[in-house]
Order: sequence, then C-alpha cells, then structure tokens
Amino acid sequence: MTESAVRGESLADEAAALDAADPLAAKRAEFDLDPEVAYFDGNSLGAPPKHVAERVRQVVREQWGRRLIRSWTEGWWEAPQRVGERIAPLVGAAAGQVVVADSTSVDLFKVLVAAVRANPGRDEVLVDAATFPTDGYVADQAARLTGHTVRRVPVAELPGAVSERTAAVLVNHVDYVSGRLHDMPSVTDAVHAVGALAVWDLCHSVGAIPVQLDACDVDFAVGCTYKFLNGGPGSPAFVYVARRHQADFDQPLAGWAGHADPFGMEPGYRGGAGIARARAGTPDILSMLALDAALDVWEGVDLSVLRAKGLALGDFFFRCADELLPGADIPTPREHARGHQVSVRDAGGQQTMNALHEHGVLGDFRPPDVLRFGLAPLYTTYAEVLRAVTVLREVR
Amino acid sequence: MTESAVRGESLADEAAALDAADPLAAKRAEFDLDPEVAYFDGNSLGAPPKHVAERVRQVVREQWGRRLIRSWTEGWWEAPQRVGERIAPLVGAAAGQVVVADSTSVDLFKVLVAAVRANPGRDEVLVDAATFPTDGYVADQAARLTGHTVRRVPVAELPGAVSERTAAVLVNHVDYVSGRLHDMPSVTDAVHAVGALAVWDLCHSVGAIPVQLDACDVDFAVGCTYKFLNGGPGSPAFVYVARRHQADFDQPLAGWAGHADPFGMEPGYRGGAGIARARAGTPDILSMLALDAALDVWEGVDLSVLRAKGLALGDFFFRCADELLPGADIPTPREHARGHQVSVRDAGGQQTMNALHEHGVLGDFRPPDVLRFGLAPLYTTYAEVLRAVTVLREVR
Repeated sequence: MTESAVRGESLADEAAALDAADPLAAKRAEFDLDPEVAYFDGNSLGAPPKHVAERVRQVVREQWGRRLIRSWTEGWWEAPQRVGERIAPLVGAAAGQVVVADSTSVDLFKVLVAAVRANPGRDEVLVDAATFPTDGYVADQAARLTGHTVRRVPVAELPGAVSERTAAVLVNHVDYVSGRLHDMPSVTDAVHAVGALAVWDLCHSVGAIPVQLDACDVDFAVGCTYKFLNGGPGSPAFVYVARRHQADFDQPLAGWAGHADPFGMEPGYRGGAGIARARAGTPDILSMLALDAALDVWEGVDLSVLRAKGLALGDFFFRCADELLPGADIPTPREHARGHQVSVRDAGGQQTMNALHEHGVLGDFRPPDVLRFGLAPLYTTYAEVLRAVTVLREVR
Repeated sequence: MTESAVRGESLADEAAALDAADPLAAKRAEFDLDPEVAYFDGNSLGAPPKHVAERVRQVVREQWGRRLIRSWTEGWWEAPQRVGERIAPLVGAAAGQVVVADSTSVDLFKVLVAAVRANPGRDEVLVDAATFPTDGYVADQAARLTGHTVRRVPVAELPGAVSERTAAVLVNHVDYVSGRLHDMPSVTDAVHAVGALAVWDLCHSVGAIPVQLDACDVDFAVGCTYKFLNGGPGSPAFVYVARRHQADFDQPLAGWAGHADPFGMEPGYRGGAGIARARAGTPDILSMLALDAALDVWEGVDLSVLRAKGLALGDFFFRCADELLPGADIPTPREHARGHQVSVRDAGGQQTMNALHEHGVLGDFRPPDVLRFGLAPLYTTYAEVLRAVTVLREVR
C-alpha cells in the first residue's frame, strides 16, 4: 500500500468519525440533494429544502389560484415584514428591524442614500476595497447622486482612513474571494468614533455565522437570502435599519409599499412606521414565500453549533489539503477569521473548476484564479470535503 | 313575469350569444379558475394559467435542485432578456428593447433618472396628475436627487404644459381609477415637440391593448406583469428603453447584472450592451420563470381580437348597467378611449365591494368610492359581466 493511499484511508476514517459525531447531521435529510453530487456552492446558491417545491406549488394553486386578490389581505402584503422577522434572529436583530425586499444591490442603494442623508455635512463614503463588485458600483451611484466622493480602502486600513469627512462606510462581513471574516465590533466602533455610519453587507455571513447587528451597534445592513439561507435563485434580499434610524429613514426608492397608508392612494409620500419604510414596490410573493418555506430548516438550529461545524469543515479542508495538496495556495485564513468557504488559487482557473464539475464536485470560480468551496453546515459532510480535495488533486 | 325579470332574461340570452361567438373562448380553459367565482380583478392580479404551478415546481425540483449553480449558465442569467423578448410583441417593441427586472417602482426610478440625465439643461419633470401614486412618489425622489422640479399636470393639459424646461414626462397609459386610455401617439408627439422625453407606464395596458411603443417613438416605458400578463403576485416588472437611447442609458441602479462583463468582477462599472444595462442586481428566478410559463397563454392570440373583446366586454357592462343600474355613476368612458376595466362610483365603497365578494364577484375598491371591475379578455365571460352587474344591483 502506498503512503498516499494510507493517508487517504486515514482521512476517510477521520471524515467518517466527524460525520458520525456531527450534531447537525439530521438537518441534511431536510434538503433535496443529488446523491451523485458533492455540493460546494451553498455560498452562492443554497440547496433547496425538500418541502419548498410543494409549498410553492400550493401557493400558486391555493393562495393565487383560489384566494386570488384576497390573498393580499390574507398575508401577502405583510409577508416582507413577517419573513424579515424570521431572519432577524439569524443576524442578531431584535424585532422590527429587518424586512425582505428587492435585490441586495437595490437595498444597498436605499441604505447608502439614506445613510448619507442621515449624516449631513460630510462629503465622502468609504467602501471596502475588496468588496463584491456590485456594492462598489452601487456606492458610486449613490455618491454621485448625493454629491459624495467614494474612496476604496482595505478593511484593515479603515480605522485609520475614516474621518470627520466620512458620512458612511460600507464593509462586506465576509470577503467573497478569500472568505476572510472582518471584525464587526471593532470596525463598527472605529466608524462610529468619527461620527460616521456603518453599513454592513452580510451576503456571505448570514446563515453561516452568528451575526450580532444590535450588539455591535450597526446602523444599516443588507444581505442576500439565496446563499446560506437557501431561499432559491435570486430570492429577495433583506434590509436592516437599526431602530434608532427608522423614524428619519429617508430612502430614495420610496414607493407605495413603504407608504404609511399604501392603499389610501395618497398623492404624496408619507413613510410608514418602522422597518416597512425600507420597502419600495409591490413585493414578489412567489419568491418571498419560497424563502419563507426555506427558512423552516432553521428551526432548532443553534447558531453556535452551526458556526462550530462550519469552522470544523474548513479545518478539515485544510487538513486534507495539507496532506493531499501540499503547497497549495489558499488565500482563506487558516485561523478562524473566516466565513464558511475555502478558496484555492489555481492557475487552471475555470478549466480546473469545469473538471471538478465533471467529477460531480460543484464549487465555483472567481477571476482571476480562485476556486471557491462553500461549506454549508446544514448539509455539507466531512466526507464530501475529502472528496472535493481528492478530486482537486486528480484534476489540477 | 316582471319587467325586470324579462330584461334579465334578455340580457342573459345576449350574454350567452356573445359567449358562444367569442373567438377567445378556448383561452379560458387554459386558466385555473374557481368555478364558484366571477373574477374581475385581472387588472390587479391576473389569474394563474393552469400549467404554472407544475412548471414552478419543476424549476425548484430540477433546475434548482438538480442542476444547482449550473443553471445560472443554462438559462437563468439570460432569462431577463429572454422573457423580455416574449413581452416585446405585446408592447409593439422590436427585439432587444425590453428586459424583465425588479418592480415597476424600481424600474421607473431607473428610467426617470436616466431620462433626465439624457436631457440635460432642463429643470422639470411633468407627471400625469392622476398617476398611480407610486409613480409620483418615485418621480419626486428621482427629481430630488437630480435637482429637478416635479409638476403634476392632467394628461389633457400636458401638450400646453410642456416646454423647453421639461426634461421628461411620465404618463400612465390607462388611468388606474377611471380606466381612461390616454392617446400615446399625440401625447408623445407633444412631448417631443419641445424636446422632452416620453416615459409611459403600461401597467394597465400591457396585455389589454395593442401598445405600439416603437411606432409612437416612445423613449422609455415600464410595466407590470402581474395584471393582464398573469405572471403571479408581485412578478417582476419590465423596462423598455428605445434602441436609440441604449448606448447612453445611464441609470442609477447600475448593479452587476447590467455590467458588460458581470462575472469578470471588475471594480468599476461598465454598462453592458443593449437593454441588459437596465438590469440591476441578481434576477429573481422563481418569479421570472413563473412569468415565463404564464406568457405561454399568449401563443396564437391576435391582439386586435383581444382588444375587440375587451371593449365588447366593457360595452356589455354598460348595457347591463343601463338596464339594471340606471343612473349609476360610471367614470369610465363609454366611448372606446378606455382600457379593460369599468369603474362604478358607489357611496358604499369598500362595504359594497365586500358584499360583492361574499356573492363570489371579485372586483376591487379604490378610495374614495370607486368599485373597479377588470375585464380580462383571455378569460372573462359576458355571463360573468351580467352576474357582476346583477349582484351589484342587489347589494348596493
């Protein structure tokens, strides 16, 4: 038996032991997973919980088909707030501060404009230099319309870069390329120290990490629901507006859904009370209720257990890589300042990822050379992690 | 036999004859309609075509559940343009000018800001004074951010009100309260005569009236898909940008989905070619593909036949009202300058509509005193029109 086969066997034993001891193992059965595939893209598109397909069919058949227009007053109109309340505990938000609406890009535009309006007399917006690109594009547009300058600053340098000129700072909680986790308490404190407002993008942390928006005194946040929340492709995003900012929340997409009396059909806009004011137009109900169904899987999940498993999956990825991919260039922090993904730089890039796909290992590729492996603690197994690294060794 | 019973019988005969001769009668069978209900809210929430529930279930099970992330390159990413192309013939648009994205409110914000940017040196935006309220709210926000003033002007007075100061004019094609149809060619010409740009809201005309955007030389348009297009509750809206404006289309929600190379992850925004630039964030796929399925019912529909039936349904409503509701206050034009709805003013307001609902006649109420009856030519029958007027006579 070769040394590498011995190593492989030992890792397989280790994976089996870790899976056997996994406190979240039962959750996997709630997902509709293809047995042929090892899925590592839950950080881009979460897998569907089994009951979602039937729930959506029922919404079409019963709520839409039978109750018709009456459904708007039988739960649809309030769904954005109701589903928002289900997300709130996952981001450490007390009730009344989260609403589901529109896309992350659109929601970010709302909160960035609202943030600079809430903090007048300042002329710049700082953006995480490694931000997911659309956040930067949206910040540029918001700044252009409100007469602000955007400066892109690495998160590590933000505490020294913020000043009395800074109206708002936009930071990604987890870097989408490297998986690095930024420290929400210290960054938010540094932003507040100069009187600026903190806007966090939670796309890669919600459902992966126990986010603590209230405890960190965050001002505004946005996040998507189609990654670790498994809401479905392009499912609507969510907005967090801290309660202290709600009465003056002055957002640029002030459509009828955020009006104090939406069906009063008043000619002028009056913002509704509370978080409803972050809504814009008519909510997209089929996607909203698919997300609502998908959130059922969070019942009984202890976020500290979730976080521990996500980190353990990553640790095991590193352990497999150390043995099977010695010398691999892994930009993801080995220490625990990371989200639930491991990235591997590979010169083969998209071609290597295509080869992984052919072997049933589904991760994704981000230019110029990053292979991403998302680790979804609700359904990813240690055996799959070993499979991913083993196949990567074969195909790269 | 009383005189009124005789009249009723004669109207019933007439309805039966009209239904028997209806060239669109076969279309009704494609919809999942509750036999207990006469549905008059297709102008607010279209009824579901029968196959939509199963199609959405398949999208969840197969495209999401089995193809997972791969579906993004197997049709999802391009779906906004592809579904837009299916709507284009319904609004008289040549290929490459319609895309499905976001809500009507959000899309209107995009095109209004883009319109005033495309027409610099002017300081006002004119808005149809009877507009659906959210359009006015959005216009106020767009104007506020771009330094313009909004003036609300009745559509009939627009030709005299536009001037060299006018950057853009927003008009609702069909008035949502009265059902009045505004004349797209003459209004657009008057707007262009002073060098302003014409933005049309097609929410109450698309799928009801053969709209002619290209022929009328319209600059921008938006419309919703959940009324006469039956896309489902809150299904995504569409944007029309005339080809001549696309290269310079400079919209404020310039997110990654509109980028020239969305997966290149470039730090700066470069607008994509053509209509894709009107996209913002990640598209909402479940709702998009429900709409896609719903659009199948338009196969083989001649829009002039559709229009003729919609008008004939309205004519028959007036005929029934003349006999059964003499003296009723009907703000909808009796002549054919109307969409596919008839409104009746009634002091009972919401209570009268509730009583109609109790009798299985589902219309809706708009303050202060308007009962609306939408007439969806693909599935509304003349017999149902008679039933609505008969029940209204009983309950008011």
